[in-house]
Amino acid sequence: QSNSNLIRATLFPGDGIGPEIAESVRQIFKVAEVPIEWEEHYVGTDIDPRTNSFLTWESLESVRRNKVGLKGPMATPIGKGHRSLNLTLRKELNLYANVRPCYSLPGYKTRYDDVNLITIRENTEGEYSGLEHQVVRGVVESLKIITRQASLRVAEYAFHYAKTHGRERVSAIHKANIMQKTDGLFLKCCREVAEKYPEIKYEEVVIDNCCMMLVKNPALFDVLVMPNLYGDIISDLCAGLIGGLGLTPSCNIGEGGIALAEAVHGSAPDIAGKNLANPTALLLSSVSMLRHLELHDKADRIQDAILKTIAEGKYRTGDLGGTATTTEFTNAICDHL
Amino acid sequence: QSNSNLIRATLFPGDGIGPEIAESVRQIFKVAEVPIEWEEHYVGTDIDPRTNSFLTWESLESVRRNKVGLKGPMATPIGKGHRSLNLTLRKELNLYANVRPCYSLPGYKTRYDDVNLITIRENTEGEYSGLEHQVVRGVVESLKIITRQASLRVAEYAFHYAKTHGRERVSAIHKANIMQKTDGLFLKCCREVAEKYPEIKYEEVVIDNCCMMLVKNPALFDVLVMPNLYGDIISDLCAGLIGGLGLTPSCNIGEGGIALAEAVHGSAPDIAGKNLANPTALLLSSVSMLRHLELHDKADRIQDAILKTIAEGKYRTGDLGGTATTTEFTNAICDHL
Ligand SMILES: CC(C)[C@H](C(=O)O)[C@@H](O)C(=O)O
Ligand SMILES: CC(C)[C@H](C(=O)O)[C@@H](O)C(=O)O
Repeated sequence: QSNSNLIRATLFPGDGIGPEIAESVRQIFKVAEVPIEWEEHYVGTDIDPRTNSFLTWESLESVRRNKVGLKGPMATPIGKGHRSLNLTLRKELNLYANVRPCYSLPGYKTRYDDVNLITIRENTEGEYSGLEHQVVRGVVESLKIITRQASLRVAEYAFHYAKTHGRERVSAIHKANIMQKTDGLFLKCCREVAEKYPEIKYEEVVIDNCCMMLVKNPALFDVLVMPNLYGDIISDLCAGLIGGLGLTPSCNIGEGGIALAEAVHGSAPDIAGKNLANPTALLLSSVSMLRHLELHDKADRIQDAILKTIAEGKYRTGDLGGTATTTEFTNAICDHL
Repeated sequence: QSNSNLIRATLFPGDGIGPEIAESVRQIFKVAEVPIEWEEHYVGTDIDPRTNSFLTWESLESVRRNKVGLKGPMATPIGKGHRSLNLTLRKELNLYANVRPCYSLPGYKTRYDDVNLITIRENTEGEYSGLEHQVVRGVVESLKIITRQASLRVAEYAFHYAKTHGRERVSAIHKANIMQKTDGLFLKCCREVAEKYPEIKYEEVVIDNCCMMLVKNPALFDVLVMPNLYGDIISDLCAGLIGGLGLTPSCNIGEGGIALAEAVHGSAPDIAGKNLANPTALLLSSVSMLRHLELHDKADRIQDAILKTIAEGKYRTGDLGGTATTTEFTNAICDHL
């Protein structure tokens, strides 16, 4: 019964405010006539032994089959013996690059008005290896793993992204002055890939210096590529520059052409179900998903409508200092479509 | 021939602009009649086999004996087989805590005017273990080491600092949601120490969230304590909020009551010898040193004179947008003493 002209995409509404902001995406996609048919999956209420998490095997299969998906916030239930939902998704779907476009939103004032950068984070290894142990009582160690394969893969993604998105420069962020072997290998791989893209400028910036430069003058940066933990830190720092995680889109790229866009903010259980949530991060993530599908006209139209609504300032949700409900904000966007 | 009423302190003028900014400290201490006699040590021109670095054994002995010192920028000569000068100092003198007061300078405008926090960085272990190796071709690992001893020591320093400096809150910065064993141990130690200081509020903040909060609203923070790499990153980020490393003091605390204050900026070889350098970071570091020696009246007097000179804005060095020479700026501070 599925319409063969439609692209099937997996939708994880997620928990807390997730279903409300997912509804906002659904409504806007309908009004904008986006040729997408959603396949909805919810986080299970029990651990699925096939995934060792609350994510069902079927939901992972859905993303693998559709190769494209959108994900709301998922709170990992407390307890032991199962994996975090976000980490399970990254691992099981081999989501190797987390891409976050971060730009100042016209009309929404922060201390910065000139942010326009992309953070590209290696998403599978580094400090997230999960390899830790106690050496002797009172002495513990964690292993940071860097591989040539994963470093080349994310570097390749970053340069390809820069080239296909009209970007001029890629900065590799590292601490190779201290971790000469691990971060050194990461840099070596970035340099190798850089040689294949002579039209893209390449530079290397030490992470501490990078953070200082970012808060002084974020306009100095264009595309940043980095190992997992630095990416975790810097992408959140950058989100802070433009107003927070409620305003920043994110998209995870996996092997085999998979793209899973996601709102990276929390599930905000305190305001869940109250029609107060700001759907912007999930909406802008859905725009990233459309760009990945090369539906650029739809992406442009929806992005413009979101930005205009925020810029006008008449309908803003509480987190942005307004009083609009999720529905009012969504309707205002639809009016701009 | 040394005057027994004077406190002996080691002075490492360092390289590049180091001698000029050290001269500024010497002059101001003389005018302010600080009871300190400097014992000067320069970085050697050859590797000292006893330290395996360009730092001489005698210079390390000087700090050990005097227990207090001030250090300008030191550029580690390029080459293999010897250690970085900064890392050698930390290791050999067991400088376990790096303390950086970071506050907005009245009259010097940045995007932030409400910064007033202290970063306290564990300075001996973590990602700086130097333990790295190749597992197989294309797969390398670094070891992050966290020990109960070093974590308790820096946590104790942080709470003691908070208590003795009229601070209200200590925030432990971590990524224990990912590195449960290493950062988990760090947090456990902070919690243990927190219990001994019921008058100081204690909280735990994940590093990515901390960076986002810092750029959105640094006034949320008071004293921050953290493992080595997070401290490296966050202390530079905070320096960026108030204008950069040229304006931020730093002091390293070692076992046995050693305090080595230092300017953490580079040696700026391009402007060295030209009387253009800004001595503020070294001067404010010397103030930290005086506070460590409990010479609070001298510290207050010198700090006030520095801040007044910057606030007035008549004599500012080039890095702050002015045209004053190092000497003019220093003389202006002396006039305020
Ligand atoms: C929740 C946490 C495990 C996660 C991470 O560290 O990757 C989050 O900070 C993120 O950036 O998605
Ligand atoms: C130069 C470098 C090794 C050093 C560090 O990482 O500790 C520096 O960034 C610092 O903060 O003193």
